Amino acid sequence: MNSDTICAVSTAPGTGGVAIIRISGDQAVAICDTLFVPIRQSKRLLTQPAYSLTYGSIMQGEELIDDVLVSLFRNPHSFTGEDTVEITCHGSIYIQQQIMQLLITNGCRTADPGEFTQRAFLNGKMDLSQAEAVADLIASTSAGTHKLAMSQMRGGFSNELTKLRAQLLDFTSLIELELDFSEEDVEFADRSNLRVLATSIEHLISKLANSFSVGNVIKNGVPVAIIGETNAGKSTLLNYLLNEEKAIVSDIHGTTRDVIEDTINIAGTTFRFIDTAGIRETTDAIETIGIERTFQKLDQASIVLWVIDLNTPIDQIEALSQKLQSKLKDKQLILVFNKVDLLTPAMLAEKQDVLSTLAAERLFISAQSRSNMDALQQLLIKAANLPQIGQNDIIVTNLRHYEALVHAQEAITRVIEGLMANISGDFLSMDIRECMHYLGIITGNIGNEEILGNIFSKFCVGK
Amino acid sequence: MNSDTICAVSTAPGTGGVAIIRISGDQAVAICDTLFVPIRQSKRLLTQPAYSLTYGSIMQGEELIDDVLVSLFRNPHSFTGEDTVEITCHGSIYIQQQIMQLLITNGCRTADPGEFTQRAFLNGKMDLSQAEAVADLIASTSAGTHKLAMSQMRGGFSNELTKLRAQLLDFTSLIELELDFSEEDVEFADRSNLRVLATSIEHLISKLANSFSVGNVIKNGVPVAIIGETNAGKSTLLNYLLNEEKAIVSDIHGTTRDVIEDTINIAGTTFRFIDTAGIRETTDAIETIGIERTFQKLDQASIVLWVIDLNTPIDQIEALSQKLQSKLKDKQLILVFNKVDLLTPAMLAEKQDVLSTLAAERLFISAQSRSNMDALQQLLIKAANLPQIGQNDIIVTNLRHYEALVHAQEAITRVIEGLMANISGDFLSMDIRECMHYLGIITGNIGNEEILGNIFSKFCVGK
Repeated sequence: MNSDTICAVSTAPGTGGVAIIRISGDQAVAICDTLFVPIRQSKRLLTQPAYSLTYGSIMQGEELIDDVLVSLFRNPHSFTGEDTVEITCHGSIYIQQQIMQLLITNGCRTADPGEFTQRAFLNGKMDLSQAEAVADLIASTSAGTHKLAMSQMRGGFSNELTKLRAQLLDFTSLIELELDFSEEDVEFADRSNLRVLATSIEHLISKLANSFSVGNVIKNGVPVAIIGETNAGKSTLLNYLLNEEKAIVSDIHGTTRDVIEDTINIAGTTFRFIDTAGIRETTDAIETIGIERTFQKLDQASIVLWVIDLNTPIDQIEALSQKLQSKLKDKQLILVFNKVDLLTPAMLAEKQDVLSTLAAERLFISAQSRSNMDALQQLLIKAANLPQIGQNDIIVTNLRHYEALVHAQEAITRVIEGLMANISGDFLSMDIRECMHYLGIITGNIGNEEILGNIFSKFCVGK
Repeated sequence: MNSDTICAVSTAPGTGGVAIIRISGDQAVAICDTLFVPIRQSKRLLTQPAYSLTYGSIMQGEELIDDVLVSLFRNPHSFTGEDTVEITCHGSIYIQQQIMQLLITNGCRTADPGEFTQRAFLNGKMDLSQAEAVADLIASTSAGTHKLAMSQMRGGFSNELTKLRAQLLDFTSLIELELDFSEEDVEFADRSNLRVLATSIEHLISKLANSFSVGNVIKNGVPVAIIGETNAGKSTLLNYLLNEEKAIVSDIHGTTRDVIEDTINIAGTTFRFIDTAGIRETTDAIETIGIERTFQKLDQASIVLWVIDLNTPIDQIEALSQKLQSKLKDKQLILVFNKVDLLTPAMLAEKQDVLSTLAAERLFISAQSRSNMDALQQLLIKAANLPQIGQNDIIVTNLRHYEALVHAQEAITRVIEGLMANISGDFLSMDIRECMHYLGIITGNIGNEEILGNIFSKFCVGK
């Protein structure tokens, strides 16, 4: 099915000290052997042992393209499960292109996005949820996402699902056995035992499905809305938080990151800031629409940072809080009194009790002079209130997995209801098979071209 | 001197499928051994043979950071000449940072720019001109620069210099021997033989120094000025040329390049476009200054693309050509008549002979509809007129080398003059020693901290 040999630059695009070009497929070693001349030894690539490194030259006829290191992996002991060669060359884009062109001329094909991982899946090196975790791992930017992707890649989730499917198979086998003997009206599967088992399976599936709310927050960030009146200092505050992180990241030479506007990482937790327009007390129709929109966006947030200029009269704050009250009910509210450097201690004290009915955290800062910013970060972490995730906890982070789990849960719930209603074995079996089907979709035991295409097209080229 | 162990991400910055972290120094293997747990075999990293690949996990205590491949190189058979470990990890920035931090915590130091190559030089793995070629190789963006850097890295230039220094040493040894016997007034070194030798050495050095004019053009691009009246279509033309190249480059997936504004690569030759203001016939003082500046910039160019709107009256073109004449004398001039799609064949024919006294190439194009652009590229290549460079030709591309060669040439010329003027041996010897000194500066036989610092600070981190 995938017998052609593929190649791609697997390291980040651009110029670096070195780059890796990966070649995988039946002809990987033979093709590289025609281009590669070892230095300091006579052994050709074809005769090198697996897991060896060889230093030599990539030649285009008589012309030297580069001096490189070649790593050799032999089927099935490679990432893809196929013969694989990795060429570590000098990291100039020109050299990367030349070697790629040379490989293509000699019979390789440029790999599609994620095609190496797809082959690993098709060759049984990993199941589908593990393959998806490879992309998650590469995309991970925080301790949280990294940990979940790593655990999923190592097969924690897959093991859980395999166990569930095995239990369901035992379950339905007994029932289907009854169907074979249907004329004799026997009951191999004790119905009360089955109910206990089905309930425990439902419990496990529902636990996994529910973990998605945590997994999604860890993966996409805790949604935080910064609200406040137009000149309260929202932008200064956000910029400070964003820049603070950039400074930390650039501490280590040689690593830079694509800063995703509005996403920051505090002590391993990702926060995603939802942009809102400034709120203003107004009777103007257009302004009112703006406020409505801000209110709608508040629905997406789990934490609300309400930035208040300390110069704002207390009755104005109270008036706004009346309007916001219904929207803030289920949110973690943090009142951030800004411009603290402009006020006297007496005026500060006056604000200590304002809005105490909202039972919110409160903090006095200066976004301008950056005072008390550490405390703000602490409060954000506290408000995020993410559960401590143990080494062996399974957390679902993938929407596709979540949807399959919800379907599986519906099916197993119908099984429980059917057992209670004493319905016939063939209907029970149908629902059990459906539950197994949805669990199988997650691991790729059941799948189709379309699902695979969809998943792997989102990978980067070279992985 | 460099006994500490250094580490850096050696692949291009950013997220990729995989990334390489390189560790070099006495403790490289020991430090990695404490972080790395092999999978599927019990042999620890410390006991692995050189040139081996080991699959395993990078652990931070109990926590799994990544599953990686580790390449092992042992002193002196590595790039730096030291024990070296290369960790190929998943290409997320988070993982790169975590592993870097872990290495630093365990006793590594972040490498300075070019420090791996600097160590290779200090450990005698390559001479200084070869080390400089490593940076040139990584920066190379065309077939020409790549070929020159590769030849220099493989030691072609160094061998030439070593031969010259050996000849000079023989030469001066004889003369210095005479000085030891000065009371006896002997002459070991036959003066006419010496003159033949010195002349041949001078010839070689001067050939190397002269090659810089070609080398510099290959490295920095053939300087091309696009001139023309304000609305002649200079920008459209330049943009077309720049975009054309980008389209070719992005043909291969997984490689992108930092487009350097104003530099393009046509069939392996780099062209550097010099920005000039539009020229206008005017009596205005300020406009005249603008024209003066354009004229000055013309001095830097070796090719001049004069873009002329086909609607321009012939006498206006003739008038401008009078002004430009002295400036265009030593240039390759290409007249580009633009907006060909707006004119009739009869009007075209009328322009065929205009400015024929300038003996320039002429071309009728439409920058807008992109007609005849291939022919323009052909003309640029022809006008660049770069010599064919053979596999063994030595071309100097580095300003530092060029300057040293000029000094060496001055010294050897003084030797020849001295021989002709029959000056005493001690003066001859001084000039020969000076010539050797300057050649030694190129290869780093003679050097100081400052030169080294200067050279390696321009490298990227990780190389």
